[in-house]
Amino acid sequence: MAVTAVPFPLPRDACSIAGSLELVGERWSLLVIREVAWGNHRFSDIARGTGAPRDRLTARLNALVTAGVLEKRPYSDSPPRSGYHLTAAGRDLLPVLQALLQWGDKWVAAEPPLRLKHAPAGHPEHAIDAEWICRTCGEPATGSRVTRELTPAGRALSGLPADEDHDHEH
Amino acid sequence: MAVTAVPFPLPRDACSIAGSLELVGERWSLLVIREVAWGNHRFSDIARGTGAPRDRLTARLNALVTAGVLEKRPYSDSPPRSGYHLTAAGRDLLPVLQALLQWGDKWVAAEPPLRLKHAPAGHPEHAIDAEWICRTCGEPATGSRVTRELTPAGRALSGLPADEDHDHEH
Repeated sequence: MAVTAVPFPLPRDACSIAGSLELVGERWSLLVIREVAWGNHRFSDIARGTGAPRDRLTARLNALVTAGVLEKRPYSDSPPRSGYHLTAAGRDLLPVLQALLQWGDKWVAAEPPLRLKHAPAGHPEHAIDAEWICRTCGEPATGSRVTRELTPAGRALSGLPADEDHDHEH
Repeated sequence: MAVTAVPFPLPRDACSIAGSLELVGERWSLLVIREVAWGNHRFSDIARGTGAPRDRLTARLNALVTAGVLEKRPYSDSPPRSGYHLTAAGRDLLPVLQALLQWGDKWVAAEPPLRLKHAPAGHPEHAIDAEWICRTCGEPATGSRVTRELTPAGRALSGLPADEDHDHEH
């Protein structure tokens, strides 16, 4: 996510941001994932929690199941009923929601209605103020501290030769 | 972003996630922010980089300027031309994009075309594997490690009395 001056020649949809947005980059999708993460598993509860029109919600839920972000699990035999649960891929979207929540608390909400707290006992009673930390060195890893480079796959997509000095994997 | 069993009675649009998605929860908006973050400031470059239809891109850019996420800065007097740059609020969206990129690298892309690297010299040549860390205690702060509670503002929105034990700020 570097702020560098020279754009990459990467084809527009090759980036993983575009790939993610293709699956979940829509208001209802991310609100659905919020509802399920917060314990609303039934269609009617997800509909009420998101405010999504029922036909669009049905389409979104089916798409998220097909994409492997949600899975259906039965909760009643008669009548037969299933609820929606996060898969491992769905749980991995929680940092995206947390980033949106933190941004909205800072830049959108006059008075944030929810406060996230860190679960460990004795943790101070204030909102979490999280940041991206590099697992390798433990330092913050966002904004201008981050650079990006094409992988071999990215170089191939961009029509660039594979043997330049950025390419360490051939 | 806790996975707790009991949903909150919060009105559906009061949450800051909904507020954020109202502003930037749309495929083109987040791709526009990606392009500007990566150094594409001119309309034509943003159009090429996102693939957005020009009329929708114009509407999105205007909305993002009105929302305070982007700002226009002149780069030519004759003809008069302006480019788009991230404001402080826009730069604060980079963790959202980084979360989407990391998710897409893991769950969408067969071979990620881009690799993010931590800028400090001597840092290993592999992709950043960042996680949300609580600034207070330095521990991971996502998923089940996070709980949520209503703030006084949230209790008022939900029609709940303000004097329950969760409410420490009155």
